[in-house]
Amino acid sequence: MSKTLALLIALSITAPVFAGNVVLIIGDGMDDQQISIARNYLVGTRGMLSVDKLPVRSNVQVLTVSDKDPSQPVYVADSANSATSMASGVVTSRGRIGTTAGTDEDVVNIIELAQQHDIRTGLVTTASITDATPAAFYAHTNSRGCQNPEMMVNAEFYPRFFVDCSADLKSNGGKGSIAEQLVTSGVDLMLGGGLKHFTLASEGGGDEVISLAEQAGYQLALDLEQLNSIEQGKLLGLFSSSTMPVIWRGEDDRAAEQSEMTWPGLIHWALGEAIDPEPMRCEDNPEFAGQPTLQQMTEKALSILDSDDGDFFLMVESASIDKQAHYRKTCGSIGELQQLNDALDSASNYAQKHPDTLILVTADHGHAAQIVPDASLFASSPYPIYRPGRLSRIITPQGNIMAVNYGTSDFFTEEHTGVSVPLMANKVALGRLPSMISQPQVFNIVRDYLIEED
Amino acid sequence: MSKTLALLIALSITAPVFAGNVVLIIGDGMDDQQISIARNYLVGTRGMLSVDKLPVRSNVQVLTVSDKDPSQPVYVADSANSATSMASGVVTSRGRIGTTAGTDEDVVNIIELAQQHDIRTGLVTTASITDATPAAFYAHTNSRGCQNPEMMVNAEFYPRFFVDCSADLKSNGGKGSIAEQLVTSGVDLMLGGGLKHFTLASEGGGDEVISLAEQAGYQLALDLEQLNSIEQGKLLGLFSSSTMPVIWRGEDDRAAEQSEMTWPGLIHWALGEAIDPEPMRCEDNPEFAGQPTLQQMTEKALSILDSDDGDFFLMVESASIDKQAHYRKTCGSIGELQQLNDALDSASNYAQKHPDTLILVTADHGHAAQIVPDASLFASSPYPIYRPGRLSRIITPQGNIMAVNYGTSDFFTEEHTGVSVPLMANKVALGRLPSMISQPQVFNIVRDYLIEED
Repeated sequence: MSKTLALLIALSITAPVFAGNVVLIIGDGMDDQQISIARNYLVGTRGMLSVDKLPVRSNVQVLTVSDKDPSQPVYVADSANSATSMASGVVTSRGRIGTTAGTDEDVVNIIELAQQHDIRTGLVTTASITDATPAAFYAHTNSRGCQNPEMMVNAEFYPRFFVDCSADLKSNGGKGSIAEQLVTSGVDLMLGGGLKHFTLASEGGGDEVISLAEQAGYQLALDLEQLNSIEQGKLLGLFSSSTMPVIWRGEDDRAAEQSEMTWPGLIHWALGEAIDPEPMRCEDNPEFAGQPTLQQMTEKALSILDSDDGDFFLMVESASIDKQAHYRKTCGSIGELQQLNDALDSASNYAQKHPDTLILVTADHGHAAQIVPDASLFASSPYPIYRPGRLSRIITPQGNIMAVNYGTSDFFTEEHTGVSVPLMANKVALGRLPSMISQPQVFNIVRDYLIEED
Repeated sequence: MSKTLALLIALSITAPVFAGNVVLIIGDGMDDQQISIARNYLVGTRGMLSVDKLPVRSNVQVLTVSDKDPSQPVYVADSANSATSMASGVVTSRGRIGTTAGTDEDVVNIIELAQQHDIRTGLVTTASITDATPAAFYAHTNSRGCQNPEMMVNAEFYPRFFVDCSADLKSNGGKGSIAEQLVTSGVDLMLGGGLKHFTLASEGGGDEVISLAEQAGYQLALDLEQLNSIEQGKLLGLFSSSTMPVIWRGEDDRAAEQSEMTWPGLIHWALGEAIDPEPMRCEDNPEFAGQPTLQQMTEKALSILDSDDGDFFLMVESASIDKQAHYRKTCGSIGELQQLNDALDSASNYAQKHPDTLILVTADHGHAAQIVPDASLFASSPYPIYRPGRLSRIITPQGNIMAVNYGTSDFFTEEHTGVSVPLMANKVALGRLPSMISQPQVFNIVRDYLIEED
């Protein structure tokens, strides 16, 4: 490369930035293992997914701190603190939504900043619209579990796993549940699941939260037909009771399973034979039928947010890459990664026509799944080789078997991991994106591009 | 960015390339999990390793095929086929060194091409210089196990794990063992471990391989002092019997260990308590003392290969990131990643003075280790949560505990994984490196830069 070009690139990093649209696409738990699994299945090892074709790539260090001592790092994030990083540029502790570790103070997020500049905003997700990732873009609570008025006093986040939302009760001077904060958020468009969080009386026995949303000017869409019928204006789409059903599942809804050892293996580890689970195909999830796809929601969002006289910020989340990985459902995660690629295609088509549109695609944290050899690397040895966790053996469309291992937990749900995560971007990001950043810098990059500096 | 700049970048991708030096640094098994583990330990979550500071980043799809049917993909590589990809641009099957899957034909490697253009070449590794990664840059065998004349007839690659080297016996028309092929390779400089592969009679009861190397003009260096004393000329350094000792180990050489369940857990999974292994510090490995570091070997290689009248190709491998991960030794892998960063620093210093030097840093395949939450994400639940594999709980220099999970196998050695791997490069690569490539393209990038096109 010529010295002139190198100089121009160096200059472009420090040059004043121009305002434009930002589409931030988050694959929840979408680390490089998840992308590689999806690539192998969807396009083959020599193919490229839409995320792979984006011309700019960076690497993101995820940051989490201890709630007890925020000066201390914690090495694995959850979606609440990592979404807070991206939405607000602030490192916090696990479970927190838009609040600081330890001190529980609200932090300003990108949507609040955008609104100060009359920039339109939208959030699209396949999770409940009150779930951690979207919530961090409009709400402030001390726990992700505080999703609705009922959970404020009885937040059973998982069975027998409670969180304390008392500090966020309006009666205690807080801002109320995440669903109630959504009503007053002013976000122009929000599409996802989570209807059950809105069909409850608001705190203190007031109107149902969904009525409050209508009173605040939101048109409601509760199915694809209603979504299609709305062309403009403030919009709240709630297409399922909780997380939206995923598009794919394993044969007969199978998850990864434990290998079994034949009886001589009970006597000595070097005896017997390890029997891996039967291979499975992926199939359509019958529960998905009729739901809007992530792509349909994204296209509606782009259509409504688009205008001649201003820019917008849109966050699109494919949430169940993570949720299906927790449950060791490889086909589920692959299908949701396909959904993300389809949504990216729509964003890329939009950016073709509106070249001031910055598209960023990233993950919030790593996950448990790993592609492992279907026959062990050491299969020629005379010993039985056993996987200690759970294994999916997925039959790809090419007819090969891809083995995916889940070995972080024996609980009903796998753990996240602390790996750095990928960040891909369209050509608008050339010269704006260092080769490695920390997760809070995602916020800075979005803000610097979205909001013209005076 | 201005349209002019975008145009210039587009042009630079297709513009004629200029010949220069290439330093290809391979971290064996150095996926983003391994780098994140090392980052957390060596510089803290908010720090950056030397590999992180490289300004260009890409993502590499690893490709492997079945030996029985080379049209079929295999989803997890070993170091032999992945090094063959990088050395020769050819996708092959696991275990193969510079030969084609199924048909066992030799493929031309980058060192052979360089020699045709009078470009000097060097190989540096912490493994045996006959181990898979370096071997793929100069040898052609049907199995990585065929390292020396004795293994040609009795290749016990792991205990009770044999490979068949008969096709490569000279007496069968082959090129002989990897060590014998090294002697005739013409590579200017090779530094690493593996002395035991050279102190054997060559095939047919001839001279010891090490004598043949001297007869071929190689100066021998068997320790750091001898290495320091040699300033120029052909050089073979063999600093340990097999793999060189690693610089760090866990306290008292501890590896990751299984968690234990208290007795009520034997009655029902929801009872009892899971007791994780005790935390450990990393410490110096006493066996390392006096060995040349990877950085010292790299600096010697740069010093000898450097000349006013020609370019060079140098491959530097930190091999035991992988080997220590197989044995679930987190501190071992961290130390070897530190060695890689130190070697990179030396290469970067060289490139400062010789700005036509392209530096590429990549991994050959993914590995088992995963950073997991030290206290489970679900620790607030009342159930005992058990890791099915092995766990290291590493006390970082900051005094925090980083938990690293190994859950791909119950065997004495973990599996590789099929994740795409990172590729980082210095600024010379700007405009030459797409955001995603397949592993054989590493060869193309090296070749196109190293060898001036007519």
